[in-house]
Amino acid sequence: MKLQVAIDRVSLEKALNIIKEVELYADIIEIGTSLIKDYGMESVRRIKEEFPEKTILTDIKTIDQAEYEFNAAYKAGADIATVMGMAPIETIEICQRIAKQYHKDYMIDLLEIEQKKLDRIKSFSDAIFCIHLPSDNKNKDISLLIKSILPNFDSLSRIAVAGGVNASILNKIKNLPIEIAVVGSAITKTNNISKAAKEIKSILGGP
Amino acid sequence: MKLQVAIDRVSLEKALNIIKEVELYADIIEIGTSLIKDYGMESVRRIKEEFPEKTILTDIKTIDQAEYEFNAAYKAGADIATVMGMAPIETIEICQRIAKQYHKDYMIDLLEIEQKKLDRIKSFSDAIFCIHLPSDNKNKDISLLIKSILPNFDSLSRIAVAGGVNASILNKIKNLPIEIAVVGSAITKTNNISKAAKEIKSILGGP
Repeated sequence: MKLQVAIDRVSLEKALNIIKEVELYADIIEIGTSLIKDYGMESVRRIKEEFPEKTILTDIKTIDQAEYEFNAAYKAGADIATVMGMAPIETIEICQRIAKQYHKDYMIDLLEIEQKKLDRIKSFSDAIFCIHLPSDNKNKDISLLIKSILPNFDSLSRIAVAGGVNASILNKIKNLPIEIAVVGSAITKTNNISKAAKEIKSILGGP
Repeated sequence: MKLQVAIDRVSLEKALNIIKEVELYADIIEIGTSLIKDYGMESVRRIKEEFPEKTILTDIKTIDQAEYEFNAAYKAGADIATVMGMAPIETIEICQRIAKQYHKDYMIDLLEIEQKKLDRIKSFSDAIFCIHLPSDNKNKDISLLIKSILPNFDSLSRIAVAGGVNASILNKIKNLPIEIAVVGSAITKTNNISKAAKEIKSILGGP
């Protein structure tokens, strides 16, 4: 399983410092929505410039105006950009097309997805689907969410999981057919970020 | 009916120029999602600094992490901030609470809303609800969307409409109980922005 480290709710300088601490263990660096809304595409340009070899996910959470937003994200240096599963189908189709044009990946964020909509979007076979527990929703259990959503996909689907993921959750789900574990606070809000990243990566079977 | 002019998909300098041309006619200036994703909260700070008397709506489209995003928006100078109706209920509740703390307004964006969710969120009686036709969805008619969503609300509800709104649509809907008409391209992408804003404002019964 790949480790995606989500950087959120910090200054851009702090973000760059965090990335230095985790770059050895993170397969993907996520520029969180808060960094984008705080600093705009400058956050993506700066981080890609300093870490040109890393895979950068830009959590832009497109809901509309996909042509403009996805072009902006890839031009700024994103390797993966995100679109909401609850966005109009037309929006997701545009994201798919632009991702193809740039030979880049796109991720469909399944936050608050309804079954009816999930049935329509699971046919985007080249997408990465992110099973996502909202951070504003403190009481739900991501294991239950994974259990309810994962069976919608076949073994070829590319799946990520996000939302309060930590070592204890990863120990429970590490044998499921999941490509990417997104970990935020359990790494970035600890006292020893590098050590936390190393420990989490070792659960996932990394170096 | 109030006129909200939405500024989108332009540089920050161009945005400031557009606002100068429309400020006489716009009751609300919308800092569009693309400006926020391009420039971050700096777009809000710059625009509020240059136009301290104008009501500024920050189209931040919060879906999660409401505490962080809404604090950031109001601190940067927003008078109104937006949250997606499709966000978790907990997210909308946090937005409501933070808006109250700042004595500011919040708008719930009804883009792609399902009836079941609409039934749950229409009880946020202090919100402004925005009936919103996605710009990626070219074929639908906003008049039909208004007709289907408006009856969910009572006469005390604060309603906005957005998505391809132009003079011809406004002539059709100007007598409906709508508080705010959001107009973007029909003003900002014309050759004479000031004249277009004046004409649209006159349809709405403005100066």
